[in-house]
Amino acid sequence: MKFAVIGTGAVGGYYGGLLMCSGFEVHFLVHSDFANVRENGILIESKDGDFLLEAIHAYENASDMPACDVVIVSLKTTQNHHLSDMLPQVVKENGIVVLLQNGLGVEREIADMLPSATVIGGLCFLCSNKVGPGHIRHLDYGSIRMGQFSRQHTAAGITDNLRFVADAFGKAGIPIHLTDNLGRARWEKLVWNMSYNGMSVVLNANTDQLMNDPAARGLIEQLMGEVIGGARARGFELAEGFARQMLAATEKMVAYNPSMKLDFEGGRELEINTIYWRPIQAAADKGYEMPRAAMLARQLEYLDRHNRRHIANPD
Amino acid sequence: MKFAVIGTGAVGGYYGGLLMCSGFEVHFLVHSDFANVRENGILIESKDGDFLLEAIHAYENASDMPACDVVIVSLKTTQNHHLSDMLPQVVKENGIVVLLQNGLGVEREIADMLPSATVIGGLCFLCSNKVGPGHIRHLDYGSIRMGQFSRQHTAAGITDNLRFVADAFGKAGIPIHLTDNLGRARWEKLVWNMSYNGMSVVLNANTDQLMNDPAARGLIEQLMGEVIGGARARGFELAEGFARQMLAATEKMVAYNPSMKLDFEGGRELEINTIYWRPIQAAADKGYEMPRAAMLARQLEYLDRHNRRHIANPD
Repeated sequence: MKFAVIGTGAVGGYYGGLLMCSGFEVHFLVHSDFANVRENGILIESKDGDFLLEAIHAYENASDMPACDVVIVSLKTTQNHHLSDMLPQVVKENGIVVLLQNGLGVEREIADMLPSATVIGGLCFLCSNKVGPGHIRHLDYGSIRMGQFSRQHTAAGITDNLRFVADAFGKAGIPIHLTDNLGRARWEKLVWNMSYNGMSVVLNANTDQLMNDPAARGLIEQLMGEVIGGARARGFELAEGFARQMLAATEKMVAYNPSMKLDFEGGRELEINTIYWRPIQAAADKGYEMPRAAMLARQLEYLDRHNRRHIANPD
Repeated sequence: MKFAVIGTGAVGGYYGGLLMCSGFEVHFLVHSDFANVRENGILIESKDGDFLLEAIHAYENASDMPACDVVIVSLKTTQNHHLSDMLPQVVKENGIVVLLQNGLGVEREIADMLPSATVIGGLCFLCSNKVGPGHIRHLDYGSIRMGQFSRQHTAAGITDNLRFVADAFGKAGIPIHLTDNLGRARWEKLVWNMSYNGMSVVLNANTDQLMNDPAARGLIEQLMGEVIGGARARGFELAEGFARQMLAATEKMVAYNPSMKLDFEGGRELEINTIYWRPIQAAADKGYEMPRAAMLARQLEYLDRHNRRHIANPD
């Protein structure tokens, strides 16, 4: 049984590391940190105890990797244009792809790429940052909601392949919650992501700063309302009080910089397309408009372009 | 004939200076720059030729000023809570108040304060910045649209008092366009202000940067559309193509930092209430929602609070 991790960052490095620690054979695609990881391994500072991964199967190119039974995709979605080159070679015939990414619509692209594969989506509830080459800091949480992608518009249910992956992750100590309705789970996650990710960039604020300011908190609540409306337009009626629960959970969380804010600070391209435009378009296809989310997406586009231009051409 | 200028900044200093240069007796209320202005006068660097105002009637307190025939109010609207202390003393019985401020709803407050006064509103099309104590830089434009406030919902028309003020300003070389409908003129000005002022702060961008980015420009156009809808809800049907003309005029303008951006950079309170909340509320009273403008206003509230806290407590 071979696992692969495509994208060894704050998400893939952490979960792949836990799988490796519990005895699974894990092959890591490591891009910019390759030399460092090959030499020094990966250090994971975790609130649950630090650990160092040594003697890693690390690869600079996907073409050097063996075909694997379970392939975890944990790239930023802005890098997904590389997947069509990488996945056909890394995923075994009838293998399983576990997509640990934010946003909407990527499972279908992978299913189109690999018709024989099982595609599983995972929503990570994880506060984890990559703080340096081969150096990950796990701050809080860590559970994953997993569901199987269905090409039909009906939910896939809880399949054997889904249970198989969940068992492996469970053995590695990762709390897994199964969902029989991946579409609904993705929209539930978007309620958080479409609100906090963009606002943290535009207002240069962490979650605590957003929650403690009445204007910012009010906007977060309005954005959540729009996303819940978008979910409803797509046929997913979220539970009464869902936004309220999410606000309360965020208040209890450590002050956190969402991944998009860290990407912005690092001069990396923001995941505007998968986190904003795809759900906005999916809702619009059903006649539901999301003016605030769309406004935020446009603000992010401006900031992203200027940010990367600035970092590319430092004064 | 005595003129007063309440608020000797980029707007009041410039126009009051032109009136003084053309021979009118002008009394200036000068707050933070008083000692400097008393000693060195006011330097106005203008694209039309620099000039230095010397031997100025400058006052630190309104209570020291004489009663004047025409009182120009050019404070930031965030300082308007001082007007009820100052105006009754500075405005002669049956005098004229010329309000050179942005936003909505201030004429009515002044009319309530001074029942015998004529209240005239002026919309300045002026690119002018205060760059230091007693130092104003006039970059571009300079015309004023003037209209008389009417307590009734009908337009006041072109009155004798309005012509009188316009003639005085005209003699000082200030291009004046009279309007018989101040309400409409205020909403037309809001089309620019509600779009560019807030966006320049949130995106940290000047007018050129906003116009040259497709996402930012698209948002500016959407915001303009909302304000035009708000004007329509209030009974002011703006001319076909109005937004297009305003976009074209902004493109031709020098790269400009709107006043709100300069206020932000200077750590001064932003004019969110008069430029955003009042028109948003006025439109909502007629059943018209402005979700993007309201979102921008909330973002500005957050940024304003954090900005002033930071400047009050520099690290």
